[in-house]
Amino acid sequence: MSKNIKLNMSRRIRRTPYTNRVEEHGVSDFTVVNHMLLPKGFKNSVEEDYWHLSKNVQMWDVSCQRQVQISGPDAFKLVQKLTPRSLKDMETGKCFYIPMLNENAGMINDPVLLKLDDDMFWISIADSDILLWAKGYALGLNLNVNIIEPDVYPLAIQGPKAEQLMVSVFGEEIKKIKFFNFRVVDFLGTKQVVARSGYSKQDGFEIYFKVHEDHFNITEMGEKLWDTLWDAGKNLNISPGCPNLIDRIEGGLMSYGNDFTRENNPLECNLDKYCKSDNSHDFIGKTALSKIQNHGIKQKMRGIIFNGSATKATSQPLKVLTEDGVEIGQITSGIYSPRIKKNIGLSMILKDYWNLGQSVIVQMLDGEKRNGTITSLPFPD
Amino acid sequence: MSKNIKLNMSRRIRRTPYTNRVEEHGVSDFTVVNHMLLPKGFKNSVEEDYWHLSKNVQMWDVSCQRQVQISGPDAFKLVQKLTPRSLKDMETGKCFYIPMLNENAGMINDPVLLKLDDDMFWISIADSDILLWAKGYALGLNLNVNIIEPDVYPLAIQGPKAEQLMVSVFGEEIKKIKFFNFRVVDFLGTKQVVARSGYSKQDGFEIYFKVHEDHFNITEMGEKLWDTLWDAGKNLNISPGCPNLIDRIEGGLMSYGNDFTRENNPLECNLDKYCKSDNSHDFIGKTALSKIQNHGIKQKMRGIIFNGSATKATSQPLKVLTEDGVEIGQITSGIYSPRIKKNIGLSMILKDYWNLGQSVIVQMLDGEKRNGTITSLPFPD
Repeated sequence: MSKNIKLNMSRRIRRTPYTNRVEEHGVSDFTVVNHMLLPKGFKNSVEEDYWHLSKNVQMWDVSCQRQVQISGPDAFKLVQKLTPRSLKDMETGKCFYIPMLNENAGMINDPVLLKLDDDMFWISIADSDILLWAKGYALGLNLNVNIIEPDVYPLAIQGPKAEQLMVSVFGEEIKKIKFFNFRVVDFLGTKQVVARSGYSKQDGFEIYFKVHEDHFNITEMGEKLWDTLWDAGKNLNISPGCPNLIDRIEGGLMSYGNDFTRENNPLECNLDKYCKSDNSHDFIGKTALSKIQNHGIKQKMRGIIFNGSATKATSQPLKVLTEDGVEIGQITSGIYSPRIKKNIGLSMILKDYWNLGQSVIVQMLDGEKRNGTITSLPFPD
Repeated sequence: MSKNIKLNMSRRIRRTPYTNRVEEHGVSDFTVVNHMLLPKGFKNSVEEDYWHLSKNVQMWDVSCQRQVQISGPDAFKLVQKLTPRSLKDMETGKCFYIPMLNENAGMINDPVLLKLDDDMFWISIADSDILLWAKGYALGLNLNVNIIEPDVYPLAIQGPKAEQLMVSVFGEEIKKIKFFNFRVVDFLGTKQVVARSGYSKQDGFEIYFKVHEDHFNITEMGEKLWDTLWDAGKNLNISPGCPNLIDRIEGGLMSYGNDFTRENNPLECNLDKYCKSDNSHDFIGKTALSKIQNHGIKQKMRGIIFNGSATKATSQPLKVLTEDGVEIGQITSGIYSPRIKKNIGLSMILKDYWNLGQSVIVQMLDGEKRNGTITSLPFPD
């Protein structure tokens, strides 16, 4: 029943340098991430966008991936305290996916960390105010750091033709950028960080667009960047887009706030490899995490494939039950996959039921019950 | 052009115990505050709602005013560090409006603080993750506190008939609650914090609805509370509602993220009385604030009354210029006031131009220029 609820616009819900362009392309839905607009749909259906993304190239305004810039003599010390993942071997030019925990080992974000220099980091965040978290902690510890939200507006180029498009605009150097690495490239005399990354299971890049001099107007330059890529992409069938729910779920890409919250620990989210018990460094939540590692977890993120008519994006969690009606978890993101030709969902499932192949019942919002099966993540190709 | 943009719903944008009811009443717009839905309109226009609010009683789902609960031996010490306002004379049962600053004396929130006990506080927040801020700082300082976001869902009863409605549901004790005080009252055997407060210039109350025992279903009980108040309000011409932009601007009530951000200090926001230089306690931002107090501020929040046709809610700031075209500030929230019979706006204005009676030019989003005058806040009755 919420299908036609409008989003009330205000300055608090920040626009981006690309919002004018996104509106010109006929954006139909927005959501709000980090107090900023994130497009959620254009003229085509989620399924049409899914097929387009898997074959062509799309441009996404993901400016809401705000950067928390930490610099100064204690920058490394602070950043390392913010995650269980060891950063000691991280080189400049690398992107690291880092779980961030509170004192109870509850997840408070799952950003990508960029190391710009030995004493300069960007934390590219999901939807929570890590700026305040990092600042509060640094103030309490009296660390010698400078923490700001710089005017960086990521623009994602995603899809199998992403490399071809990027090369045509930025040159052959783009090909040298490996997955989860970045390089600094030139755009009209400005220096831009370009990473091979993105919130899809396709190939792709994220341009961490920034203007470094005050005399540039950020919207004007942002629109130039958008237009340049758009024009170069016309013969590649470029389309405006946004993170695609079908692609994201198939790829097992979790969304903070949707698929996990601060009530979940990283082991429940299958992030064990970033939480190795031999990590010798100190970090927030270490004691609590160690306790959980010793006692084991009670639930875990799994895939579910389920029957029935094609399910549209689930706006609220769906209950997962045993055949006897016992609640054993919930699907937090679900939709119909036109490739698997079944409905699929990301779900947090209790231990006794998380084995692959386990039969479950999925209860739709209207009460309808459907048969399903537990699978691994990402969903099989 | 953003008028018909839909809000994409997901678990991350949290529903409240009243969202079902709000949808049944025909909510037309939502916004997102603290990762939660805030209704922004129903079937009537903003102007119709304004007149209704000034004469009757309305019920608002303001669950997005999340509570940051700070308890434990160091609770007072921590809370006092979070604001320049002295809390040493604050008694249990009081509500204090408290600016919260970062290390540069930039505003990071302007919540209402409730003192539940000597070692138990609720911070009822505007739109930023103060939970992370307070927790990060407490962890850094190694304070002995417990900080959580409890399941509290404020419901506001606003308008001149609010007291009559509240008395009919909760009894005569309601009359004893003075402005910015709270009492604990009974609702179906549960204890509820009720404060005389609210985000309007009318009389009103905020019920900090909470269920303390696990066997209560929060949505079920929330709907009971809503229905009880609704039924009791029928003969008082009760209506569903939300913070009303005309009423809010007339009353000079600022909105964090709209009218001021972390780029603004509290003196620019006319919050001098909470920042007295004789405050002897230590707080975050004290050094920076003291420097600003010594050097003086460069801009200040003012009212502007301006001519021209009736202006709808401004979704983006409007430039304020001198007659010579020099930019001297911006209107951050603006709308037509049917009582003043002119357009009004909250605006941040440079020092040389902030005198009352100063003539200014307001530039609309389409470029149209209108004559205006600087006024004090709140706007004159």
